[in-house]
Amino acid sequence: MTPLFQRVAVLGVGLIGGSVAAAARARGVAAELVGYAPGDDARDAQALGLIDSAAPDAASAARGADLIVLAAPIPAMQGLLAQIAGELAPHALVTDTASTKRSIVAAARSALGPAFARFVAAHPIAGAETHGPASSRADLFDGCITLLCPEPETDPQAQERVAGFWTGLGARVAQMEVQRHDRLFAEISHWPHAAVFTLCAAIAQGSQAQDALRFAGAGLRDTTRIGASSAALWADIVLDNRDAVLDCARAFERELHAMVEALGRGDRQALVERFETASRWRRRLP
Amino acid sequence: MTPLFQRVAVLGVGLIGGSVAAAARARGVAAELVGYAPGDDARDAQALGLIDSAAPDAASAARGADLIVLAAPIPAMQGLLAQIAGELAPHALVTDTASTKRSIVAAARSALGPAFARFVAAHPIAGAETHGPASSRADLFDGCITLLCPEPETDPQAQERVAGFWTGLGARVAQMEVQRHDRLFAEISHWPHAAVFTLCAAIAQGSQAQDALRFAGAGLRDTTRIGASSAALWADIVLDNRDAVLDCARAFERELHAMVEALGRGDRQALVERFETASRWRRRLP
Repeated sequence: MTPLFQRVAVLGVGLIGGSVAAAARARGVAAELVGYAPGDDARDAQALGLIDSAAPDAASAARGADLIVLAAPIPAMQGLLAQIAGELAPHALVTDTASTKRSIVAAARSALGPAFARFVAAHPIAGAETHGPASSRADLFDGCITLLCPEPETDPQAQERVAGFWTGLGARVAQMEVQRHDRLFAEISHWPHAAVFTLCAAIAQGSQAQDALRFAGAGLRDTTRIGASSAALWADIVLDNRDAVLDCARAFERELHAMVEALGRGDRQALVERFETASRWRRRLP
Repeated sequence: MTPLFQRVAVLGVGLIGGSVAAAARARGVAAELVGYAPGDDARDAQALGLIDSAAPDAASAARGADLIVLAAPIPAMQGLLAQIAGELAPHALVTDTASTKRSIVAAARSALGPAFARFVAAHPIAGAETHGPASSRADLFDGCITLLCPEPETDPQAQERVAGFWTGLGARVAQMEVQRHDRLFAEISHWPHAAVFTLCAAIAQGSQAQDALRFAGAGLRDTTRIGASSAALWADIVLDNRDAVLDCARAFERELHAMVEALGRGDRQALVERFETASRWRRRLP
Protein backbone atom coordinates (compact mmCIF):
# COMPACT_ATOMS: atom_id res chain seq x y z
CA MET A 1 0.00 0.00 0.00
CA THR A 2 1.37 3.43 -0.90
CA PRO A 3 1.95 5.54 2.20
CA LEU A 4 -0.46 8.48 2.55
CA PHE A 5 2.50 10.88 2.83
CA GLN A 6 5.99 10.80 1.31
CA ARG A 7 7.89 12.87 3.80
CA VAL A 8 6.47 13.77 7.20
CA ALA A 9 8.40 16.23 9.35
CA VAL A 10 7.76 16.03 13.10
CA LEU A 11 8.89 19.13 14.99
CA GLY A 12 9.24 18.21 18.64
CA VAL A 13 9.75 14.49 19.30
CA GLY A 14 8.80 14.11 22.97
CA LEU A 15 5.97 11.85 24.15
CA ILE A 16 3.46 13.19 21.60
CA GLY A 17 5.70 13.92 18.60
CA GLY A 18 7.64 10.70 19.17
CA SER A 19 4.38 8.74 19.34
CA VAL A 20 3.15 10.43 16.12
CA ALA A 21 6.35 9.23 14.45
CA ALA A 22 6.13 5.75 15.98
CA ALA A 23 2.50 5.34 14.94
CA ALA A 24 3.14 6.74 11.45
CA ARG A 25 5.94 4.23 10.97
CA ALA A 26 4.12 1.26 12.51
CA ARG A 27 1.05 1.88 10.35
CA GLY A 28 2.86 2.77 7.12
CA VAL A 29 1.38 6.26 6.98
CA ALA A 30 4.67 7.95 5.96
CA ALA A 31 7.41 6.79 3.58
CA GLU A 32 10.00 8.97 5.30
CA LEU A 33 10.04 10.50 8.78
CA VAL A 34 12.28 13.40 9.63
CA GLY A 35 12.40 14.97 13.06
CA TYR A 36 13.66 18.14 14.60
CA ALA A 37 13.95 19.15 18.24
CA PRO A 38 16.37 21.33 20.16
CA GLY A 39 18.78 19.52 22.50
CA ASP A 40 19.20 15.74 22.26
CA ASP A 41 15.59 14.71 21.67
CA ALA A 42 15.86 14.32 17.86
CA ARG A 43 19.10 12.34 18.11
CA ASP A 44 17.50 10.16 20.81
CA ALA A 45 14.37 9.69 18.68
CA GLN A 46 16.54 8.57 15.76
CA ALA A 47 18.48 6.16 17.99
CA LEU A 48 15.14 4.75 19.19
CA GLY A 49 14.11 4.19 15.56
CA LEU A 50 11.19 6.64 15.79
CA ILE A 51 12.44 8.81 12.89
CA ASP A 52 14.68 8.16 9.87
CA SER A 53 16.74 11.29 10.31
CA ALA A 54 17.27 14.22 12.66
CA ALA A 55 17.32 17.59 10.92
CA PRO A 56 19.63 20.33 12.23
CA ASP A 57 16.84 22.90 12.28
CA ALA A 58 13.10 23.25 11.71
CA ALA A 59 13.52 24.77 8.24
CA SER A 60 15.58 21.82 6.97
CA ALA A 61 13.07 19.39 8.43
CA ALA A 62 10.16 21.16 6.71
CA ARG A 63 11.92 21.45 3.32
CA GLY A 64 10.40 18.96 0.90
CA ALA A 65 7.91 17.59 3.48
CA ASP A 66 4.33 17.07 2.37
CA LEU A 67 3.15 17.10 6.01
CA ILE A 68 4.62 18.98 8.92
CA VAL A 69 3.44 18.06 12.45
CA LEU A 70 4.11 20.68 15.11
CA ALA A 71 4.46 18.73 18.37
CA ALA A 72 6.57 21.11 20.43
CA PRO A 73 5.72 22.77 23.76
CA ILE A 74 3.41 25.76 23.32
CA PRO A 75 6.04 28.52 23.81
CA ALA A 76 8.10 27.07 20.93
CA MET A 77 5.25 26.94 18.41
CA GLN A 78 5.34 30.55 17.22
CA GLY A 79 9.08 30.37 16.51
CA LEU A 80 8.71 27.08 14.65
CA LEU A 81 5.92 28.48 12.48
CA ALA A 82 8.13 31.44 11.55
CA GLN A 83 11.02 29.12 10.69
CA ILE A 84 9.01 26.80 8.43
CA ALA A 85 6.87 29.49 6.74
CA GLY A 86 9.38 30.12 3.92
CA GLU A 87 10.05 26.41 3.34
CA LEU A 88 6.58 25.08 2.66
CA ALA A 89 6.14 23.26 -0.64
CA PRO A 90 3.01 24.40 -2.52
CA HIS A 91 1.17 21.21 -1.57
CA ALA A 92 2.58 20.93 1.98
CA LEU A 93 0.11 20.57 4.85
CA VAL A 94 0.68 21.58 8.46
CA THR A 95 -1.01 20.20 11.57
CA ASP A 96 -0.21 20.35 15.28
CA THR A 97 -0.84 18.61 18.60
CA ALA A 98 -1.24 21.50 21.04
CA SER A 99 -3.70 21.16 23.94
CA THR A 100 -4.85 24.75 23.38
CA LYS A 101 -5.98 25.97 19.98
CA ARG A 102 -6.67 29.71 20.04
CA SER A 103 -3.06 30.89 20.26
CA ILE A 104 -1.59 28.45 17.76
CA VAL A 105 -4.31 29.22 15.22
CA ALA A 106 -3.57 32.95 15.63
CA ALA A 107 0.18 32.32 15.31
CA ALA A 108 -0.29 30.17 12.20
CA ARG A 109 -2.60 32.71 10.58
CA SER A 110 -0.02 35.41 11.16
CA ALA A 111 3.08 33.39 10.17
CA LEU A 112 1.88 31.34 7.21
CA GLY A 113 0.07 33.92 5.04
CA PRO A 114 -1.92 32.25 2.24
CA ALA A 115 -0.52 28.86 3.30
CA PHE A 116 -2.68 29.17 6.42
CA ALA A 117 -5.39 27.52 4.28
CA ARG A 118 -3.31 24.35 4.56
CA PHE A 119 -2.87 24.57 8.33
CA VAL A 120 -5.29 22.21 10.10
CA ALA A 121 -5.23 22.65 13.87
CA ALA A 122 -5.49 19.35 15.70
CA HIS A 123 -5.63 18.11 19.29
CA PRO A 124 -5.12 14.39 19.80
CA ILE A 125 -6.80 13.58 23.15
CA ALA A 126 -4.05 11.27 24.27
CA GLY A 127 -1.14 11.59 26.60
CA ALA A 128 0.55 10.25 29.67
CA GLU A 129 2.30 11.62 32.72
CA THR A 130 5.64 10.63 31.16
CA HIS A 131 7.61 12.70 28.68
CA GLY A 132 10.55 12.54 26.29
CA PRO A 133 11.16 10.42 23.15
CA ALA A 134 11.75 7.24 25.17
CA SER A 135 8.17 7.34 26.46
CA SER A 136 6.73 7.30 22.91
CA ARG A 137 4.22 4.58 22.06
CA ALA A 138 3.05 3.54 18.59
CA ASP A 139 -0.40 2.81 20.06
CA LEU A 140 -0.82 6.11 21.93
CA PHE A 141 -3.61 7.30 19.61
CA ASP A 142 -5.44 3.97 19.22
CA GLY A 143 -9.12 4.61 19.66
CA CYS A 144 -8.53 8.15 20.95
CA ILE A 145 -10.32 11.14 19.49
CA THR A 146 -8.33 13.76 17.59
CA LEU A 147 -10.24 17.02 17.40
CA LEU A 148 -9.70 19.15 14.30
CA CYS A 149 -10.40 22.87 14.67
CA PRO A 150 -10.65 24.31 11.15
CA GLU A 151 -11.09 28.03 10.48
CA PRO A 152 -13.09 29.72 7.69
CA GLU A 153 -9.91 29.91 5.56
CA THR A 154 -9.10 26.20 5.94
CA ASP A 155 -9.01 24.32 2.62
CA PRO A 156 -11.50 21.43 2.89
CA GLN A 157 -9.17 19.14 0.93
CA ALA A 158 -6.30 19.93 3.28
CA GLN A 159 -8.59 19.15 6.20
CA GLU A 160 -9.59 15.85 4.64
CA ARG A 161 -5.96 14.84 4.06
CA VAL A 162 -4.99 15.77 7.62
CA ALA A 163 -8.02 13.88 8.97
CA GLY A 164 -6.75 10.90 6.97
CA PHE A 165 -3.36 11.25 8.65
CA TRP A 166 -4.81 11.14 12.15
CA THR A 167 -7.15 8.30 11.27
CA GLY A 168 -4.10 6.55 9.84
CA LEU A 169 -2.43 6.79 13.26
CA GLY A 170 -5.39 4.99 14.84
CA ALA A 171 -7.42 7.95 16.10
CA ARG A 172 -11.06 8.77 15.49
CA VAL A 173 -11.47 12.30 14.14
CA ALA A 174 -14.06 14.86 15.23
CA GLN A 175 -14.41 18.58 14.61
CA MET A 176 -14.81 21.44 17.06
CA GLU A 177 -14.72 25.21 16.90
CA VAL A 178 -11.60 26.78 18.46
CA GLN A 179 -13.27 28.81 21.25
CA ARG A 180 -15.46 25.90 22.27
CA HIS A 181 -12.42 23.62 22.27
CA ASP A 182 -10.42 25.83 24.60
CA ARG A 183 -13.35 26.31 26.97
CA LEU A 184 -14.08 22.56 27.07
CA PHE A 185 -10.46 21.56 27.65
CA ALA A 186 -9.99 24.15 30.36
CA GLU A 187 -12.82 22.31 32.12
CA ILE A 188 -11.85 18.67 31.48
CA SER A 189 -8.08 18.79 31.28
CA HIS A 190 -6.25 22.07 32.00
CA TRP A 191 -8.03 22.93 35.25
CA PRO A 192 -8.05 19.31 36.51
CA HIS A 193 -4.27 19.22 35.98
CA ALA A 194 -3.86 22.46 37.96
CA ALA A 195 -6.17 21.11 40.71
CA VAL A 196 -4.27 17.81 40.96
CA PHE A 197 -0.91 19.61 41.05
CA THR A 198 -2.37 21.67 43.91
CA LEU A 199 -3.58 18.57 45.77
CA CYS A 200 -0.13 16.95 45.41
CA ALA A 201 1.74 20.14 46.36
CA ALA A 202 -0.32 20.44 49.55
CA ILE A 203 0.40 16.81 50.48
CA ALA A 204 4.09 17.22 49.59
CA GLN A 205 4.36 20.20 51.93
CA GLY A 206 2.27 18.64 54.72
CA SER A 207 3.45 16.84 57.85
CA GLN A 208 2.53 13.43 56.41
CA ALA A 209 4.42 13.69 53.10
CA GLN A 210 6.72 10.72 53.82
CA ASP A 211 4.06 8.39 55.22
CA ALA A 212 1.80 9.39 52.35
CA LEU A 213 4.28 7.81 49.94
CA ARG A 214 4.29 4.62 51.99
CA PHE A 215 0.59 4.18 52.72
CA ALA A 216 -1.12 5.68 49.66
CA GLY A 217 -3.81 3.39 48.31
CA ALA A 218 -4.99 2.83 44.76
CA GLY A 219 -7.42 5.75 45.04
CA LEU A 220 -4.75 8.36 45.73
CA ARG A 221 -2.49 6.81 43.14
CA ASP A 222 -5.13 7.19 40.40
CA THR A 223 -6.29 10.61 41.58
CA THR A 224 -2.77 12.03 41.50
CA ARG A 225 -1.34 10.19 38.48
CA ILE A 226 -1.39 13.29 36.25
CA GLY A 227 0.40 15.17 39.05
CA ALA A 228 3.61 13.49 37.85
CA SER A 229 3.29 15.33 34.52
CA SER A 230 5.82 17.91 33.37
CA ALA A 231 5.46 21.07 35.47
CA ALA A 232 6.80 23.39 32.75
CA LEU A 233 4.62 21.93 30.01
CA TRP A 234 1.45 22.32 32.07
CA ALA A 235 2.34 25.77 33.34
CA ASP A 236 2.56 26.81 29.68
CA ILE A 237 -0.78 25.17 28.86
CA VAL A 238 -2.73 26.81 31.69
CA LEU A 239 -1.10 30.17 30.95
CA ASP A 240 -1.97 29.87 27.26
CA ASN A 241 -5.61 29.21 28.15
CA ARG A 242 -5.58 31.48 31.16
CA ASP A 243 -9.01 33.14 31.00
CA ALA A 244 -10.91 29.90 30.58
CA VAL A 245 -8.82 28.16 33.26
CA LEU A 246 -9.41 31.05 35.67
CA ASP A 247 -13.16 30.70 35.05
CA CYS A 248 -12.89 27.05 36.05
CA ALA A 249 -10.78 28.00 39.08
CA ARG A 250 -13.48 30.40 40.26
CA ALA A 251 -16.26 27.83 39.83
CA PHE A 252 -14.15 25.28 41.69
CA GLU A 253 -13.39 27.73 44.51
CA ARG A 254 -17.11 28.45 44.95
CA GLU A 255 -17.91 24.74 45.19
CA LEU A 256 -14.94 24.17 47.50
CA HIS A 257 -15.96 27.00 49.79
CA ALA A 258 -19.52 25.68 50.09
CA MET A 259 -18.30 22.15 50.73
CA VAL A 260 -15.78 23.16 53.41
CA GLU A 261 -18.44 25.34 55.07
CA ALA A 262 -20.83 22.39 55.18
CA LEU A 263 -18.10 20.20 56.66
CA GLY A 264 -17.20 22.87 59.21
CA ARG A 265 -20.76 23.13 60.49
CA GLY A 266 -21.27 19.36 60.37
CA ASP A 267 -24.10 19.62 57.84
CA ARG A 268 -24.36 16.02 56.66
CA GLN A 269 -27.27 16.62 54.31
CA ALA A 270 -25.48 19.43 52.45
CA LEU A 271 -22.33 17.33 52.14
CA VAL A 272 -24.22 14.31 50.83
CA GLU A 273 -26.01 16.48 48.27
CA ARG A 274 -22.76 18.02 47.00
CA PHE A 275 -20.95 14.69 46.87
CA GLU A 276 -23.98 13.12 45.19
CA THR A 277 -23.93 15.78 42.44
CA ALA A 278 -20.33 14.76 41.81
CA SER A 279 -20.91 11.05 42.04
CA ARG A 280 -23.97 11.05 39.77
CA TRP A 281 -22.00 12.87 37.06
CA ARG A 282 -18.92 10.65 37.41
CA ARG A 283 -20.93 7.44 37.16
CA ARG A 284 -22.08 8.56 33.72
CA LEU A 285 -18.49 8.68 32.44
CA PRO A 286 -18.15 5.63 30.22
CA MET B 1 -5.63 -27.35 57.10
CA THR B 2 -7.79 -26.34 60.06
CA PRO B 3 -9.37 -22.95 59.50
CA LEU B 4 -8.01 -20.20 61.76
CA PHE B 5 -11.55 -19.41 62.95
CA GLN B 6 -14.59 -21.59 63.43
CA ARG B 7 -17.36 -19.04 63.05
CA VAL B 8 -16.74 -15.57 61.66
CA ALA B 9 -19.57 -13.04 61.80
CA VAL B 10 -19.40 -10.20 59.28
CA LEU B 11 -21.63 -7.26 60.19
CA GLY B 12 -22.18 -5.22 57.05
CA VAL B 13 -21.65 -7.13 53.79
CA GLY B 14 -21.12 -4.37 51.23
CA LEU B 15 -17.95 -4.05 49.16
CA ILE B 16 -15.61 -4.37 52.18
CA GLY B 17 -17.57 -6.80 54.38
CA GLY B 18 -18.53 -8.88 51.35
CA SER B 19 -14.88 -9.01 50.25
CA VAL B 20 -13.79 -10.00 53.77
CA ALA B 21 -16.25 -12.90 53.55
CA ALA B 22 -15.23 -13.81 49.99
CA ALA B 23 -11.52 -13.79 50.86
CA ALA B 24 -12.08 -15.71 54.13
CA ARG B 25 -13.94 -18.39 52.18
CA ALA B 26 -11.53 -18.52 49.24
CA ARG B 27 -8.52 -18.86 51.54
CA GLY B 28 -10.06 -21.23 54.07
CA VAL B 29 -9.68 -18.79 56.96
CA ALA B 30 -13.16 -19.49 58.42
CA ALA B 31 -15.08 -22.75 58.77
CA GLU B 32 -18.40 -20.92 58.88
CA LEU B 33 -19.35 -17.42 57.72
CA VAL B 34 -22.45 -15.69 58.99
CA GLY B 35 -23.47 -12.24 57.87
CA TYR B 36 -25.80 -9.55 59.05
CA ALA B 37 -26.85 -6.31 57.35
CA PRO B 38 -30.06 -4.30 57.37
CA GLY B 39 -32.09 -4.36 54.16
CA ASP B 40 -31.36 -6.95 51.47
CA ASP B 41 -27.56 -6.97 51.61
CA ALA B 42 -27.18 -10.08 53.78
CA ARG B 43 -29.72 -12.05 51.69
CA ASP B 44 -27.92 -10.90 48.54
CA ALA B 45 -24.54 -11.85 50.01
CA GLN B 46 -25.88 -15.30 50.81
CA ALA B 47 -27.31 -15.68 47.30
CA LEU B 48 -23.89 -14.67 45.92
CA GLY B 49 -22.26 -17.40 48.04
CA LEU B 50 -20.26 -14.91 50.10
CA ILE B 51 -21.69 -16.09 53.43
CA ASP B 52 -23.20 -19.38 54.63
CA SER B 53 -26.14 -17.77 56.37
CA ALA B 54 -27.82 -14.43 56.91
CA ALA B 55 -28.61 -13.66 60.56
CA PRO B 56 -31.79 -11.72 61.41
CA ASP B 57 -29.90 -9.31 63.66
CA ALA B 58 -26.39 -8.44 64.82
CA ALA B 59 -26.79 -10.21 68.18
CA SER B 60 -27.69 -13.53 66.54
CA ALA B 61 -24.79 -13.18 64.13
CA ALA B 62 -22.33 -12.55 66.96
CA ARG B 63 -23.62 -15.37 69.15
CA GLY B 64 -21.12 -18.23 69.13
CA ALA B 65 -18.72 -16.44 66.77
CA ASP B 66 -15.01 -16.53 67.58
CA LEU B 67 -14.40 -13.48 65.38
CA ILE B 68 -16.74 -10.60 64.63
CA VAL B 69 -15.82 -8.22 61.82
CA LEU B 70 -17.58 -4.83 61.91
CA ALA B 71 -17.77 -3.69 58.28
CA ALA B 72 -20.74 -1.35 58.39
CA PRO B 73 -20.85 2.36 57.53
CA ILE B 74 -19.49 4.53 60.36
CA PRO B 75 -22.84 5.80 61.72
CA ALA B 76 -23.99 2.18 62.26
CA MET B 77 -20.92 1.07 64.19
CA GLN B 78 -21.91 2.34 67.64
CA GLY B 79 -25.30 0.62 67.48
CA LEU B 80 -23.75 -2.66 66.31
CA LEU B 81 -21.23 -2.59 69.16
CA ALA B 82 -24.08 -2.14 71.67
CA GLN B 83 -26.00 -5.04 70.11
CA ILE B 84 -23.13 -7.52 70.17
CA ALA B 85 -21.66 -6.52 73.55
CA GLY B 86 -23.85 -8.95 75.51
CA GLU B 87 -23.33 -11.82 73.08
CA LEU B 88 -19.54 -12.13 73.03
CA ALA B 89 -18.16 -15.54 73.91
CA PRO B 90 -15.28 -15.35 76.41
CA HIS B 91 -12.73 -16.02 73.65
CA ALA B 92 -14.45 -13.95 70.94
CA LEU B 93 -12.37 -11.34 69.12
CA VAL B 94 -13.71 -8.22 67.42
CA THR B 95 -12.13 -6.26 64.57
CA ASP B 96 -13.41 -3.65 62.13
CA THR B 97 -12.74 -2.06 58.76
CA ALA B 98 -13.53 1.62 59.32
CA SER B 99 -11.49 4.29 57.51
CA THR B 100 -11.38 6.37 60.70
CA LYS B 101 -10.22 4.91 63.99
CA ARG B 102 -10.66 7.43 66.80
CA SER B 103 -14.45 7.26 67.05
CA ILE B 104 -14.82 3.49 66.70
CA VAL B 105 -12.11 2.88 69.29
CA ALA B 106 -13.97 5.22 71.68
CA ALA B 107 -17.30 3.51 70.93
CA ALA B 108 -15.81 0.04 71.44
CA ARG B 109 -14.15 1.05 74.71
CA SER B 110 -17.45 2.36 75.97
CA ALA B 111 -19.67 -0.51 74.69
CA LEU B 112 -17.53 -3.60 75.31
CA GLY B 113 -16.32 -3.10 78.88
CA PRO B 114 -13.57 -5.61 79.77
CA ALA B 115 -14.03 -7.29 76.36
CA PHE B 116 -12.49 -4.15 74.84
CA ALA B 117 -9.15 -5.96 75.39
CA ARG B 118 -10.22 -8.28 72.57
CA PHE B 119 -11.20 -5.47 70.18
CA VAL B 120 -8.45 -4.89 67.61
CA ALA B 121 -9.15 -1.83 65.44
CA ALA B 122 -8.17 -2.39 61.81
CA HIS B 123 -8.16 -0.46 58.57
CA PRO B 124 -7.62 -2.46 55.41
CA ILE B 125 -6.24 0.01 52.85
CA ALA B 126 -8.30 -1.36 50.02
CA GLY B 127 -11.45 -0.28 48.33
CA ALA B 128 -13.10 0.65 45.09
CA GLU B 129 -15.55 3.23 43.85
CA THR B 130 -18.21 0.51 43.69
CA HIS B 131 -20.36 -0.63 46.60
CA GLY B 132 -22.78 -3.37 47.64
CA PRO B 133 -22.31 -7.14 48.07
CA ALA B 134 -22.21 -7.73 44.30
CA SER B 135 -19.01 -5.69 44.01
CA SER B 136 -17.18 -7.93 46.50
CA ARG B 137 -13.90 -9.49 45.41
CA ALA B 138 -12.00 -12.32 47.07
CA ASP B 139 -8.71 -10.67 46.01
CA LEU B 140 -9.53 -7.16 47.30
CA PHE B 141 -6.94 -7.34 50.09
CA ASP B 142 -4.19 -9.11 48.12
CA GLY B 143 -0.94 -7.33 48.80
CA CYS B 144 -2.72 -4.41 50.49
CA ILE B 145 -1.70 -3.15 53.90
CA THR B 146 -4.10 -3.55 56.83
CA LEU B 147 -3.23 -1.18 59.63
CA LEU B 148 -3.95 -2.34 63.18
CA CYS B 149 -4.42 0.38 65.79
CA PRO B 150 -4.13 -1.27 69.22
CA GLU B 151 -4.71 0.60 72.47
CA PRO B 152 -2.95 0.13 75.83
CA GLU B 153 -5.75 -2.24 76.91
CA THR B 154 -5.46 -4.45 73.83
CA ASP B 155 -4.56 -8.07 74.62
CA PRO B 156 -1.39 -8.90 72.63
CA GLN B 157 -2.67 -12.41 71.92
CA ALA B 158 -5.91 -10.99 70.55
CA GLN B 159 -3.90 -8.66 68.36
CA GLU B 160 -1.80 -11.53 67.08
CA ARG B 161 -4.87 -13.62 66.22
CA VAL B 162 -6.53 -10.69 64.43
CA ALA B 163 -3.28 -9.96 62.56
CA GLY B 164 -3.34 -13.62 61.48
CA PHE B 165 -6.88 -13.15 60.19
CA TRP B 166 -5.94 -10.19 57.99
CA THR B 167 -2.78 -11.90 56.80
CA GLY B 168 -4.94 -14.90 56.01
CA LEU B 169 -7.06 -12.70 53.72
CA GLY B 170 -3.95 -11.75 51.74
CA ALA B 171 -3.07 -8.45 53.40
CA ARG B 172 0.21 -7.33 54.92
CA VAL B 173 -0.25 -6.08 58.46
CA ALA B 174 1.32 -2.97 59.99
CA GLN B 175 0.65 -1.10 63.20
CA MET B 176 -0.15 2.58 63.75
CA GLU B 177 -1.30 4.73 66.63
CA VAL B 178 -4.92 5.93 66.35
CA GLN B 179 -4.29 9.71 66.24
CA ARG B 180 -1.52 9.35 63.71
CA HIS B 181 -3.73 7.07 61.61
CA ASP B 182 -6.58 9.56 61.45
CA ARG B 183 -4.25 12.46 60.63
CA LEU B 184 -2.48 10.47 57.88
CA PHE B 185 -5.70 9.23 56.29
CA ALA B 186 -7.24 12.69 56.35
CA GLU B 187 -4.27 13.70 54.19
CA ILE B 188 -4.05 10.72 51.81
CA SER B 189 -7.64 9.56 51.53
CA HIS B 190 -10.41 11.54 53.23
CA TRP B 191 -9.42 14.98 51.97
CA PRO B 192 -8.51 13.73 48.46
CA HIS B 193 -11.99 12.19 48.24
CA ALA B 194 -13.58 15.50 49.26
CA ALA B 195 -11.37 17.38 46.76
CA VAL B 196 -12.24 15.01 43.90
CA PHE B 197 -15.97 15.20 44.72
CA THR B 198 -15.57 18.98 44.55
CA LEU B 199 -13.77 18.83 41.19
CA CYS B 200 -16.51 16.58 39.77
CA ALA B 201 -19.34 18.67 41.26
CA ALA B 202 -17.90 21.82 39.64
CA ILE B 203 -17.65 20.08 36.25
CA ALA B 204 -21.15 18.61 36.67
CA GLN B 205 -22.58 22.07 37.28
CA GLY B 206 -20.54 23.80 34.56
CA SER B 207 -21.56 24.68 31.02
CA GLN B 208 -19.50 21.80 29.56
CA ALA B 209 -20.92 18.96 31.69
CA GLN B 210 -22.32 17.04 28.71
CA ASP B 211 -19.30 17.42 26.41
CA ALA B 212 -17.06 16.58 29.33
CA LEU B 213 -18.63 13.11 29.44
CA ARG B 214 -17.99 12.67 25.73
CA PHE B 215 -14.45 14.02 25.42
CA ALA B 216 -12.86 13.17 28.77
CA GLY B 217 -9.45 11.58 28.30
CA ALA B 218 -7.70 8.94 30.40
CA GLY B 219 -6.28 11.63 32.69
CA LEU B 220 -9.67 12.95 33.82
CA ARG B 221 -11.01 9.42 34.08
CA ASP B 222 -8.25 8.40 36.52
CA THR B 223 -8.32 11.69 38.42
CA THR B 224 -12.05 11.48 39.04
CA ARG B 225 -12.45 7.70 39.50
CA ILE B 226 -13.01 7.95 43.26
CA GLY B 227 -15.63 10.64 42.57
CA ALA B 228 -18.01 7.81 41.70
CA SER B 229 -17.82 6.54 45.29
CA SER B 230 -20.81 6.53 47.62
CA ALA B 231 -21.68 10.10 48.62
CA ALA B 232 -23.26 9.10 51.95
CA LEU B 233 -20.41 6.82 52.96
CA TRP B 234 -17.79 9.51 52.32
CA ALA B 235 -19.81 12.28 53.93
CA ASP B 236 -19.83 10.13 57.07
CA ILE B 237 -16.09 9.49 56.87
CA VAL B 238 -15.09 13.16 56.47
CA LEU B 239 -17.52 14.17 59.22
CA ASP B 240 -16.12 11.51 61.54
CA ASN B 241 -12.58 12.83 60.97
CA ARG B 242 -13.69 16.44 60.65
CA ASP B 243 -10.89 18.32 62.45
CA ALA B 244 -8.08 16.59 60.58
CA VAL B 245 -9.93 16.91 57.25
CA LEU B 246 -10.53 20.62 57.88
CA ASP B 247 -6.78 21.04 58.52
CA CYS B 248 -6.12 19.49 55.13
CA ALA B 249 -8.78 21.69 53.55
CA ARG B 250 -7.08 24.81 54.90
CA ALA B 251 -3.64 23.75 53.67
CA PHE B 252 -5.15 22.95 50.26
CA GLU B 253 -6.97 26.31 50.12
CA ARG B 254 -3.71 28.16 50.85
CA GLU B 255 -1.89 26.32 48.07
CA LEU B 256 -4.87 26.81 45.73
CA HIS B 257 -5.02 30.52 46.44
CA ALA B 258 -1.30 30.99 45.74
CA MET B 259 -1.51 28.96 42.53
CA VAL B 260 -4.57 30.82 41.19
CA GLU B 261 -2.91 34.15 42.07
CA ALA B 262 0.21 33.14 40.13
CA LEU B 263 -1.95 32.11 37.17
CA GLY B 264 -3.90 35.35 37.34
CA ARG B 265 -0.79 37.52 37.16
CA GLY B 266 0.82 35.28 34.51
CA ASP B 267 3.74 34.37 36.76
CA ARG B 268 5.19 31.39 34.90
CA GLN B 269 8.10 30.87 37.29
CA ALA B 270 5.84 30.67 40.36
CA LEU B 271 3.50 28.25 38.58
CA VAL B 272 6.34 25.99 37.46
CA GLU B 273 7.76 25.94 41.01
CA ARG B 274 4.40 24.99 42.54
CA PHE B 275 3.68 22.34 39.92
CA GLU B 276 7.23 21.03 40.28
CA THR B 277 6.79 20.59 44.06
CA ALA B 278 3.75 18.46 43.23
CA SER B 279 5.34 16.55 40.41
CA ARG B 280 8.55 15.74 42.31
CA TRP B 281 6.51 14.30 45.18
CA ARG B 282 4.21 12.32 42.90
CA ARG B 283 7.08 10.75 40.95
CA ARG B 284 8.30 9.24 44.21
CA LEU B 285 5.02 7.31 44.66
CA PRO B 286 5.89 3.72 43.80
